[in-house]
Amino acid sequence: MHQEQRERTHALLKSKSIHRALFANPANVTWLTGFARPWRAGADLYAGGPPLVWYEDGHFTLIVMDGQVAEAEAFSQEAGCAVIGYAGYAYEKAPQGHTLLKAALRQLVEASGNTGTVGVEARYLPFALAEVVRSSTSDLIDIDEWLTPYRLVRTDEELDKMRENFALIKIGQEAAKATVKPGNSEMDVWFAIHNAMQTAAGQTLHLGNDCVVGRRMGGPALDIEILPTDSFIVDLSTILHGYWSDSCVTYYATEPSSKQVAMHRTVADALELAISLARPGAIAREIDQTVRQFVMDAGYPSYPHHTGHGAGVIGHEGPRITPHSEEILEAGMVIMLEPGIYYPGETGVRLEHAVLVTDNGPEIISPYDLNIP
Amino acid sequence: MHQEQRERTHALLKSKSIHRALFANPANVTWLTGFARPWRAGADLYAGGPPLVWYEDGHFTLIVMDGQVAEAEAFSQEAGCAVIGYAGYAYEKAPQGHTLLKAALRQLVEASGNTGTVGVEARYLPFALAEVVRSSTSDLIDIDEWLTPYRLVRTDEELDKMRENFALIKIGQEAAKATVKPGNSEMDVWFAIHNAMQTAAGQTLHLGNDCVVGRRMGGPALDIEILPTDSFIVDLSTILHGYWSDSCVTYYATEPSSKQVAMHRTVADALELAISLARPGAIAREIDQTVRQFVMDAGYPSYPHHTGHGAGVIGHEGPRITPHSEEILEAGMVIMLEPGIYYPGETGVRLEHAVLVTDNGPEIISPYDLNIP
Repeated sequence: MHQEQRERTHALLKSKSIHRALFANPANVTWLTGFARPWRAGADLYAGGPPLVWYEDGHFTLIVMDGQVAEAEAFSQEAGCAVIGYAGYAYEKAPQGHTLLKAALRQLVEASGNTGTVGVEARYLPFALAEVVRSSTSDLIDIDEWLTPYRLVRTDEELDKMRENFALIKIGQEAAKATVKPGNSEMDVWFAIHNAMQTAAGQTLHLGNDCVVGRRMGGPALDIEILPTDSFIVDLSTILHGYWSDSCVTYYATEPSSKQVAMHRTVADALELAISLARPGAIAREIDQTVRQFVMDAGYPSYPHHTGHGAGVIGHEGPRITPHSEEILEAGMVIMLEPGIYYPGETGVRLEHAVLVTDNGPEIISPYDLNIP
Repeated sequence: MHQEQRERTHALLKSKSIHRALFANPANVTWLTGFARPWRAGADLYAGGPPLVWYEDGHFTLIVMDGQVAEAEAFSQEAGCAVIGYAGYAYEKAPQGHTLLKAALRQLVEASGNTGTVGVEARYLPFALAEVVRSSTSDLIDIDEWLTPYRLVRTDEELDKMRENFALIKIGQEAAKATVKPGNSEMDVWFAIHNAMQTAAGQTLHLGNDCVVGRRMGGPALDIEILPTDSFIVDLSTILHGYWSDSCVTYYATEPSSKQVAMHRTVADALELAISLARPGAIAREIDQTVRQFVMDAGYPSYPHHTGHGAGVIGHEGPRITPHSEEILEAGMVIMLEPGIYYPGETGVRLEHAVLVTDNGPEIISPYDLNIP
């Protein structure tokens, strides 16, 4: 699994004459190996440290706590990526995960035939582990963000994971539509979504982002009653196999007002425009400016957020479709596009689709209905 | 808020002649300030880095991303702990959170009147930030785990947060009891618990740990049907104000069998014994050995897990009530005690209470019913 990612990485490091590297950014660890650390808060409290990937001249070794080895090996055996484990917490022994992790890392570094510079992801690598690497080498070089441009171009394997995720999102959006009614609360809608998605997945899932009456624009669901005049913004994400989705549809407690209908149709048109611009070679800020201007030209205020962003092993990443972003779209990128119109305290509409940029034009990979009135 | 924690820390660092320190362990950041970072997966994806606490001669400064400043200041204004923010992600500008965090940290370090050694939590501090501190100082000293023994003795302020948390757990356990029925699935029970607790809290909550038919012993809820002969283990935790709870009760799909009744009563007796031993001066391993032996003397197998553990800003921390632990209980510690009896594939029982160790004897702070048949 994820062999293509490792080949890209090897080619990059080789071209930079980096023979050894330690990857500590959890997003990159997932991207390099397919191994996704459990998302649960506190799930790694027993651990000695984060999962790491050691690179040496084209060979990759994933370092994880014992409890994760079986899962990690399922990936490695497919892919020629070695896995080594260290004991985390076990009730029979004193916890010494951190010491064991350091020892495992030291052994890898010292066993390497190479000497000299080691690339490290300095924003993510704990200082204590950097010291282990440094003690066996002459120099550390910061390779934070080196993988990013390669990571943003998806492989078919990654797209399959994302499509599976978006199929769950569709179920969540349908549950939302059935629950947005006067008298229900924001939390009622959230519960319906979360339960429907987890039931469909057959497992517990993390659920983000916004589930609010349109007058609130965004935020987590609260015990706020839905009024008959409310629009309702459902901006959902979840994580599956380490990959994130994102989505947004706006619903109505009763029939939308003529103002809401006009807003919704304008946002749908803006989204369609944004999607049509998602082509290789497009400059991110030009998409943002064009779509934002379209909304303003229709007589509405500019939305106080980005027009879109990438999503993958991180929920919000590049290319950022914002007024400043010089990023250039490439075939294989997945971008979320999400224009909106808001009158805070009164009502609001936001619609979002996930789009795969291809040489043959944009392809929507988020299969839900936009509820256009 | 949490002024007593900072006073303890100041006294400790002063006694070690440490004038400057940087705390990066998220649990210690919460303990020192009362500020709890949002628990949601991916919630800090825009951030430059983790929240940090800079210490200089008795003065504490919490460093957080802009979006967290208002919440952080609510604590600081009560407490004389300064807060500085840096801009994370904003759609109008290129993201530069990490650069701004480094600049904010550099300014604090360079403005300090002191020179020389800086204490750092090396297991948690990212290497890139350690380099910022090191460039302005002669030496870094590892202070990982220095706060732990102080942190395990709770203040009244912390106990209030934990009691508020356990009141939610009680609601979750009651929802579980009402839902454990033949034909329902593990996930049905999980949803009922999660929805009831979130409704009571008026906010979305993280929910852990186990929600399984007793024959499975532990694990996340799956789409597994409850059979009439099943016991059902509900081991729940959540996080409120940065503090963790934990709990376990066993329920029955129908009337428990005479074997299950006997197991349940033995576990309840073992738990009562464990609680009676939770006194200042007790050695953790002796509690574990005594309780484990009690279960075995009753003719049951030893449980394949700890007898208990501390809980607070971390869900599983010291004192660890395990066969090896030489930790000594002190007044003010909160420990979870959770003996069990399991016949994997057949049935199982686990019961857990949270106990505050006091000079006047153990006090149960988890208010739910143990469902003893």
